[in-house]
This record gives sequence, structure tokens and C-alpha cells, in this order.
Amino acid sequence: MLPIAVDAMGGDNAPGEIVAGARRAAEELGVPVVLVGRPDEIGDTGGLEIIEASEVIAMDAEPGSSVRRLKDSSLVRAAEAVRDGRASAMVSAGNTGATMASALLRMGRIRGIQRPAIATPIPTPGSTPTILLDAGANAEVQPEWMVQFARMGAVYARDRFAIETPRVGLLSIGEEAGKGNPLVKAAHELLADGAWAADIGATWIGNVEGRDIMTPDVDVVVTDGFTGNVTLKTLEGAMQALIGRLLVAIDTDDTTRAAGAALAPALDAMVAELHPDTVGGALLLGVNGVCVISHGSSGATAMVNAIGVAAEMVRADMVGHLAATVA
Amino acid sequence: MLPIAVDAMGGDNAPGEIVAGARRAAEELGVPVVLVGRPDEIGDTGGLEIIEASEVIAMDAEPGSSVRRLKDSSLVRAAEAVRDGRASAMVSAGNTGATMASALLRMGRIRGIQRPAIATPIPTPGSTPTILLDAGANAEVQPEWMVQFARMGAVYARDRFAIETPRVGLLSIGEEAGKGNPLVKAAHELLADGAWAADIGATWIGNVEGRDIMTPDVDVVVTDGFTGNVTLKTLEGAMQALIGRLLVAIDTDDTTRAAGAALAPALDAMVAELHPDTVGGALLLGVNGVCVISHGSSGATAMVNAIGVAAEMVRADMVGHLAATVA
Repeated sequence: MLPIAVDAMGGDNAPGEIVAGARRAAEELGVPVVLVGRPDEIGDTGGLEIIEASEVIAMDAEPGSSVRRLKDSSLVRAAEAVRDGRASAMVSAGNTGATMASALLRMGRIRGIQRPAIATPIPTPGSTPTILLDAGANAEVQPEWMVQFARMGAVYARDRFAIETPRVGLLSIGEEAGKGNPLVKAAHELLADGAWAADIGATWIGNVEGRDIMTPDVDVVVTDGFTGNVTLKTLEGAMQALIGRLLVAIDTDDTTRAAGAALAPALDAMVAELHPDTVGGALLLGVNGVCVISHGSSGATAMVNAIGVAAEMVRADMVGHLAATVA
Repeated sequence: MLPIAVDAMGGDNAPGEIVAGARRAAEELGVPVVLVGRPDEIGDTGGLEIIEASEVIAMDAEPGSSVRRLKDSSLVRAAEAVRDGRASAMVSAGNTGATMASALLRMGRIRGIQRPAIATPIPTPGSTPTILLDAGANAEVQPEWMVQFARMGAVYARDRFAIETPRVGLLSIGEEAGKGNPLVKAAHELLADGAWAADIGATWIGNVEGRDIMTPDVDVVVTDGFTGNVTLKTLEGAMQALIGRLLVAIDTDDTTRAAGAALAPALDAMVAELHPDTVGGALLLGVNGVCVISHGSSGATAMVNAIGVAAEMVRADMVGHLAATVA
């Protein structure tokens, strides 16, 4: 396998945690990794190769213009490495918009896909994660794109989580076909015949609601990038608020603190299961290569998981499967 | 105070739990209550008066046509009681769409308000709840309506939670002004000058994200009814999933079960604080009367809280305050 190109300069904890995660991924997972960035800042690579890139796109930079202007940035060079056959995939915890723009401009789209979408796995207690897409690539979408999102999400659910017959739902505000805004109603009409699902072995289950996302009742939730991003961040906020409140409950008195200590391993397992880092980042589906977008706050462990996911998707030939669904 | 009209026939647990809640509200809170519905099904009212209504709008009935057709339904009669000065407010756990339609058609809008909005308080650990609106009244909105939502939300935050200078944010997918879909960008432009906020003593804080909702950083979150409803249900689902997963963690082995028992009172307090029933339902802001929309699954305690909120809002003259803001 060609190495995974890791943007060493992207993320709140770059390059330290990113490089540490890349080294661990190489050692623990046996995945070949190449770091992209400034050699002097990257420091000890532990033997990993470096693709040099002198520029860095800041976390809050305007994506489109940055990618056009900063041609020697780590993000652009990582995407070029995939395009040029020097790397099999790219992984970045940097500026999400710039990651998308780099991937789109350098790798290009899969023929037949109108817009790439961010597919984010949402942890679901006791079950495989639910894939939410688009989680933020397109603030505005057309109904036809959502059919492509549905197809891409189903292929990804199978390649990533071995879900043989993914159940695909459309995010709305009621189960009935007539519920929703005009975009959702139009998308529902296109999706409702189910023909798009039949040839890829998916099952169309109609509208789903926000409360269904974290249940085992749906595998792929299709939505526009605005609603998807609000939903994703709402889930993150809810998890944080609830876990924070749980710690307050445990800190009530000596009895509850002792109980909390006894529960600690079970609670740690719970938090690990529900933490976004565990699922290893989102995928930009629809570009002509594997592109993993990690959370800006990613630490070394999140990077290990993200690099692991990238390697899995390369081995599974997910991009080939996506291309076949739209051919 | 005129009595609160309670739709005895609306909700998954009607009329049993609804009547039980109404009786408890009268006894425990000293709030005058009148039940609306079928006397033979309501049973023992414990001395509460009944406004007879022979029809019931089903939970899954089409709202508009039901309200027009079922003129002697409990929902329509409850709204008429407010209009006719027989009741000071209405409360229903029934069909949400039909509750809105009844209130809108019978009470009418406050002059100057283009569309009513559902304002739902979201529990925020360690702080006053965050008011989310529109949580589902309008699947499609105009940017100008969102300015009215912002004003109504601020007035409500003050009357309901005594927040003197409510901080109002617009739900989007990034803090910067340019982030969002076309609707949000247009609303941002209208909201950004802050003049709408100055005369009502609110503070415009710009865009907020999904992860901010359950934090103490914002008091009123403005959004369209589609995004708001998805967000609300996503939060409900996240709470359910997390509390379910917590019970699994506690049920790991004898040690964790014992710890769980020791933690039970603190966890019960946590769940009570975060449970939607505790905050007592949503308000339909913008109709010419107090209309409380309770969760369909409301039990007696949720009804006590909802009736209490209705009485508080009547005493605070919230409708008068709303009318003054748009006069």
C-alpha cells in the first residue's frame, strides 16, 4: 500500500500530537505513513518520510483563497501526493474548508458525483455508528445531490462498518412524506421510489427524525450540509453537557465520589465509545481519493484512529466502489 | 386570574394523566384550571369545571383540516375559551400542529407579528435554560420573521427566566457572519445592526453553533422551524442515548451496580434537571394569548409544570409585553 499522507501542520495540536499519532499509527497498525509539512517544525519523525511543504493554512483562514494562494501548503501538498500516486490517502485535522477545497481541487471529483459530502459516523450505543451526511461540505444543496449522498452513504456504511444492507433515511421533522421544508420534500420525492437503493443493496426507510440518529434504527442519515453540521455540533454539545453534568452529580458528596471511583472504568469505556475521536474522523465522499477530515482538537489517539480508517478505506477500495455506483 | 384551559383529551396519556396533572396543579400550585373535553371520559375532576367538547383531534391527524372540520374538538374549544375571555391560557399535550392551528385561528396573531414561533426551553446544566425558537411552527421562514423571533425570544427569556439582558444568537455553522445557508446569511444581515435588540434590552451576540445551545453562553437561539425541530429532537435523542448508555455502564457488574445505587439520588436529580418535562413545555409565541404546547408523552408531573408555566406567563403579562415590542 502507498503511504497515507498526514498533514503534520493541521489542527489545534499540530505538529506535536499529529506527528505522535502518525508515529504510533505506523508502529501499532503497521500502516505506512508520510508526513507533510515543515521538517524543522515536525522534528523527530521516528523514521517516517516527509513531503516538504513550506506553508501552513491557518485554522481560521478563508478556505478557497488560501488553497489557491498557498500552493506550497501542507494541505495542498498532501492532496497532490494522492493525485500524483505518491500517497494512497490524505488525513488532516486542519481547516476543514481548506481540506475539502484542497481535495476537491487537486484530486477532483469522482465522475458523476456532483458534490462531495462529509460523512461523519455518529456513535450509537450498542450498535454500529450511524453515518450522517452531508455533515457540512455544502451549506446549500440540490435535491438530486441528496440522492447521491444517499448512495455514497450506503456504500461507505458497507465498506466501513460491514453493514450489508444499510438502511437509509432522510432527516426531516416528521415521518410522513409531506413533512419538511421544500428541499426535503423534493428530495423525499426523488428518494421515495427506492430504485436508487435497489442496485446497491440499500434499504430506503423514509424520513427519520433527530431522535433516531443515535438509535440502532437507521444506518445512514441524509441531510443538507447546513442541517447536518448543526446536528453534528448539537450532538457534540449535548454529549459535553451531559458528561459535565454527570461529573457534577458524582461530585455531590463523599458517598457519590466513592461510587464514582468504583464506576470509573465503566464510565471511561462509555466516554470512549461515545467520543468523536474514537470513530476516527469524517470522510469526504465523492472526491477521487480517500480524504479523512479529523476534528480540529484531535490528539495523537484520534490521529491513530483516523489514519487507521484511511488505511481501511484504501484497502476496501471504497473510492472504486463509489465510482462504480455512479458509473 | 381566569382559569387555565387544559385540553383533557390531548396527548398519549390522555385523559388519565392530563386530568391527574390538572388536579394536582390546582391543588399544589393554587392555579385555577378548567378542563376541556368529554365529561364521560374525563371522569372525576376533583371539583374542576369542564368546558364540554364532543370531538377529539387525533395525535396524527392532519392539523389544518382537523381544526376546520372538528369545531367541537377539545383543542378548538380550549382556544375559544381564551379568545372569549373564559380562560386566561390554554395548555395541550395533543397534536402539536393542531394546537398551533387552533390557537392561531381562534386567538389570532399579535398585531405586527407575521408568524408565531414555538419557543422551547433547552435545559442547560448549572444555568438558566436556553430558549430555542422556532422549534417547529414554520418549516419555511423569511429572514424578517427571524428578527421577530429574536425579539419575542428575548421578551420571553425575561418574563420566564428573569434574564434581564438576554443574549440572542443566530444558529449557524460557524461564528463568522458569512457562514450559513442563504436564509441564515440574510437573517444575519438584518440582525447584525443590533437596533432590534437595543429597545428591548437584549444583546445580539452573532452566530452561535449547535454546541453552544446547552452552554451558559447564550440565552436565546434563533433559527427556522425546520432546523429548530431537527435540533430539538436531536437533543432529545442524545439525552436518551446517553442515559441509556449510562445505565448499561452501571449494570456492568456487582461493584458498578452497588455504585449505581449509591449514586441514584444524584443521578435522579440530574435526569430531572435535564428532562424536557421539567421545563414545562414550549410556548407558542406570537398568538394573542398564552398557549403552552406540552410533549405528547406528558405525564401528570409534566402537566403540573406546563400549567404552572401558563399561569406564570399570564401573571407576567407576557402577551402584553410581546405586543408592546412590536407596537
